[in-house]
Amino acid sequence: MGEFELLAKVRERLAPPGPRIRVGSGDDAAVTVPGGATATSVDALVEGVHFRRDRASLAQIGRKALGTALSDLAAMGAEAGEAYVVLGVPPELGEDDCLELVDGFAALAAETGTTLAGGDLTRAPVLTLAVTVVGHAGSAEELVGRGGAKPGDVLVLTGEIGGAAAGLLLAEQPRLAEAVPARTAERLALRQLVPTPRLGAGRALASAGASSMIDLSDGLGGDAAHLAAASGVAIDVDAGALPLADGLAAVAVAAGRDPLELAVGGGEDYELLATLPPGRVDEATAAVGALGAARLTQIGAVSAGEGIEIRLPGGATLAPAGYDQLR
Amino acid sequence: MGEFELLAKVRERLAPPGPRIRVGSGDDAAVTVPGGATATSVDALVEGVHFRRDRASLAQIGRKALGTALSDLAAMGAEAGEAYVVLGVPPELGEDDCLELVDGFAALAAETGTTLAGGDLTRAPVLTLAVTVVGHAGSAEELVGRGGAKPGDVLVLTGEIGGAAAGLLLAEQPRLAEAVPARTAERLALRQLVPTPRLGAGRALASAGASSMIDLSDGLGGDAAHLAAASGVAIDVDAGALPLADGLAAVAVAAGRDPLELAVGGGEDYELLATLPPGRVDEATAAVGALGAARLTQIGAVSAGEGIEIRLPGGATLAPAGYDQLR
Repeated sequence: MGEFELLAKVRERLAPPGPRIRVGSGDDAAVTVPGGATATSVDALVEGVHFRRDRASLAQIGRKALGTALSDLAAMGAEAGEAYVVLGVPPELGEDDCLELVDGFAALAAETGTTLAGGDLTRAPVLTLAVTVVGHAGSAEELVGRGGAKPGDVLVLTGEIGGAAAGLLLAEQPRLAEAVPARTAERLALRQLVPTPRLGAGRALASAGASSMIDLSDGLGGDAAHLAAASGVAIDVDAGALPLADGLAAVAVAAGRDPLELAVGGGEDYELLATLPPGRVDEATAAVGALGAARLTQIGAVSAGEGIEIRLPGGATLAPAGYDQLR
Repeated sequence: MGEFELLAKVRERLAPPGPRIRVGSGDDAAVTVPGGATATSVDALVEGVHFRRDRASLAQIGRKALGTALSDLAAMGAEAGEAYVVLGVPPELGEDDCLELVDGFAALAAETGTTLAGGDLTRAPVLTLAVTVVGHAGSAEELVGRGGAKPGDVLVLTGEIGGAAAGLLLAEQPRLAEAVPARTAERLALRQLVPTPRLGAGRALASAGASSMIDLSDGLGGDAAHLAAASGVAIDVDAGALPLADGLAAVAVAAGRDPLELAVGGGEDYELLATLPPGRVDEATAAVGALGAARLTQIGAVSAGEGIEIRLPGGATLAPAGYDQLR
């Protein structure tokens, strides 16, 4: 593989650089003029750890690598800006394979207005992607961290959860697909293979005064615990209010699993979990709803104290082990 | 390995965040307020491709990963700012090993004023480091790319070259160390194991009006060719003027190699190659000299045309194959 030739082909496939770019890919470093504040996050996907090539296409892997990185920017309420990619290529992958992967990456970059502004291509024993993304906001105060939840705030969630866990079950046990219509099975599988970063919802929640926010990568139970710990508060989740992914219940029952435990313990949904002052919930719900991509649901409350509690509809509490064992 | 516990220990070992950081490591993304322009570059080191663990300590590997990334910022004339690191850890490395690696990284970060502002820790089949660095300047115009060399400009080089190539020879053939004093052999070995990014010299050259600049990672021959191609000019290198690393000649002769070919074709010296208008050379030489780390040497000239030519002292020209075969 000729690195320089391949990089030239990669550049041909990219959208024109965004307005902040002064020098793009091809120099020692990319030059940007950010203005305001930046949010920067880095995420890695390693073959055999985060994905299997017999279950996902190269285009899907490329798309997921960018999607999971951008999800962190969504959780800050940032606007997507630039991406920088390290691609470690194993010997059995050729130039066309690399370009298929780049095409998946580039498609999501174009959809989200992200510029691929730099990268490094290297040999590696297994397919490895490390993606750094830079997002933007007018000022640091417009960005939302994990540490601002206050007692009295309302806990809200975008979209539906448990879909990625169900999709993973379907990949591991293909016979489970018989439990749901074919289109539902496909949607659940894609949910896990190519997550959608909730960039628009993240900005809407930030504008509506979200006091804290996180994206669900580890699972609702674990990520709510991160919010509670960073904010120094207690978080109560009403399990009966959780918006469960369509088909999750049928797949879970067919697999002999509890749908609620999958929804609470399953990772990779990449929905946004946020806290809002009670007076801003209607505004936030309307703003997220207007995007058409993922409705906002109230799923709990913040109080003084520490830790999280997940209340089941009957009044019982889901034991921490109920989600810990699924992580 | 508990990821969260290890990350907490890593954070304890880091210097306090720099002035541009609003939210550091531990949230979904780091928040910075850059001001002016940023230069961003990403570099990966993969075990078995870029380093061998039987030749370098983990602290050296951590230091080199940051050093090679920062060298790209030096080549833009940027001030070091933030670093974001993906660390892929193979099963045989434990927590103490990771912390030794982080210590090497953190030492250079402290020396250069770089804040480790985020990262991702993952399992991987071999030790893998992907480092994104962000540098800063007052404006995009203060940063120096590869494409601005003009006919009539003078070609200058910081420090000495060929040391890393000699260090690599010493690692591959330990008996060659007998050709030089022990301290010289050690210095050459370190030259290859822990390169120094020329950040101060890069800023001095940018301030003195450098029209183009690149860091020597591939080797003088290859990197001069990159400058010439990006600028659309011809570059002539006077091989007799090249500042050769102390001990290079003796090691090369003992290995049956030509010192000049090692100096021109050997990579990883991470010195800066720049072009300057003739009227600014004295100012640049004084400014780089005042730093005390690496003197500036005039090694050639820029003219109209294309490609590079390396003139030997006798008047002959070093054939392109003379450096290509060494890359």
